Amino acid sequence: MLIEAIAQMQQWSEAMRTQGNIIGLVPTMGFLHEGHCALIKTAAQECSVVITTVFVNPLQFGPSEDFARYPRDLERDIQLATQAGATVVFAPTVEHMYPAGYAAMIDPGPIAEKFEGIFRPGHFRGVATVVAKLFNITKPHVAYFGQKDYQQTLVISQLIRDLNFDIRMRVLPTVRQDDGLALSSRNVYLSPQERQQATILYRALQEAEYAIRQGERRRETINTLLRHTIEAGCPEIKIEYAAAATAETLEEPEFFASGSRVVLLLAVRLGTARLIDNSLVEVP
Amino acid sequence: MLIEAIAQMQQWSEAMRTQGNIIGLVPTMGFLHEGHCALIKTAAQECSVVITTVFVNPLQFGPSEDFARYPRDLERDIQLATQAGATVVFAPTVEHMYPAGYAAMIDPGPIAEKFEGIFRPGHFRGVATVVAKLFNITKPHVAYFGQKDYQQTLVISQLIRDLNFDIRMRVLPTVRQDDGLALSSRNVYLSPQERQQATILYRALQEAEYAIRQGERRRETINTLLRHTIEAGCPEIKIEYAAAATAETLEEPEFFASGSRVVLLLAVRLGTARLIDNSLVEVP
Repeated sequence: MLIEAIAQMQQWSEAMRTQGNIIGLVPTMGFLHEGHCALIKTAAQECSVVITTVFVNPLQFGPSEDFARYPRDLERDIQLATQAGATVVFAPTVEHMYPAGYAAMIDPGPIAEKFEGIFRPGHFRGVATVVAKLFNITKPHVAYFGQKDYQQTLVISQLIRDLNFDIRMRVLPTVRQDDGLALSSRNVYLSPQERQQATILYRALQEAEYAIRQGERRRETINTLLRHTIEAGCPEIKIEYAAAATAETLEEPEFFASGSRVVLLLAVRLGTARLIDNSLVEVP
Repeated sequence: MLIEAIAQMQQWSEAMRTQGNIIGLVPTMGFLHEGHCALIKTAAQECSVVITTVFVNPLQFGPSEDFARYPRDLERDIQLATQAGATVVFAPTVEHMYPAGYAAMIDPGPIAEKFEGIFRPGHFRGVATVVAKLFNITKPHVAYFGQKDYQQTLVISQLIRDLNFDIRMRVLPTVRQDDGLALSSRNVYLSPQERQQATILYRALQEAEYAIRQGERRRETINTLLRHTIEAGCPEIKIEYAAAATAETLEEPEFFASGSRVVLLLAVRLGTARLIDNSLVEVP
């Protein structure tokens, strides 16, 4: 079922809650791929009703970014979401989400300032704001996000905790193609050759994971390994960041402690696409 | 009943909603007076359960403001709120509301920048943030605010609309003492003499109201009338602002249009107290 009006979505969710349902929310920007569908499938297993939102949020795009050309296909999204187990697809218009006079913005704080925050200033303010709106519109018990947008999961976790949203957050693993490329709606921007070249991201993550498992704990060394692997494998790629950080806080210590969790974070440009990927590793 | 834990408050509200109750919320900073009690009484008439929150929110006080000395008396508040019809008094600690690592802030936008926003920078960010938290913790259907904090009611109205809180807002008239002084927890800062002098605020509002009803529409003339009435009546008062503005937007046109609504806004310092008051007038 498609719902486009905000008030109707709120009424539906309220009625569902009153009837004792557990509402799962899978927020997306649409153009669904298997990564989204995996979130929806898990939500359908864990909740009695599932709302998938499809909204390309202008607030989280910078002025020179790809808002206008971001791929859209609502009919296909409704079909895929429904097949995966969504009860409702909520697809509001930009005009209803941000009517004339719209002004409120949520600043998630320092966790939003690093990595993506440096290269996409204001991005996470836009993300936090739209997610808060979607929470208030869809009233979920559980919200599902992909690990693919790792820093985003930290931002939303902070949002939920700080603003006391009574919502449980579930982060599910990144879904990859057979050659390791993380699924992303933005992969459509890649030419066939770039699509091949993009596999170096996953290989770089694997190299760094392997080094950490073999005992490497020096952050700079891990960063250099990530960077060199990408540069050697594909000189056409422009690296925005390739960095290891403490998984929970994104802090960047000189050495990672034994037993700590490290996140390896990549953001690159390849052709007209901007790609991100990440991996979590436990330090032995 | 007193609830102090955030999770317990959420569970209580969730259970109440599931049972079909209508929850009214009266957020306060405590040290309740008849103005608060009027909000609670109305909430009790219109809702099946009423939550009064008592929380002196550090986030909305500037570094040189009166957070530390703001009057507090929780036992008395519980008694007064209960007598007025509150089902629950929710009084969380600062440490639970803003634990270590707290970071998220809500910026309400331009409506927060004028008048109070000039003299209390950051005030409405603190207000919007704590109100959003209290909404998520108490899950009300209806939230009650006093017109006394007029600009705050506009900020919260914007917050509710922009972030899609599924909450109805009710603004109730300012409660005054017999001589016209608006009730305020901060009136305890006034010496007996200052308490007398403070009545000039209401008289100034009445003078300006009268002038508008007699046909005065020039904003500067109304402002001058407000200012001169206060200065003539009590030279000890330091005026921060004394201004007429469009009621809905706080815009300041040269002339107010016939049929429009004007708000008269006052903020002054008298002794160690900072007092605000306001009045709404329809332009004939």
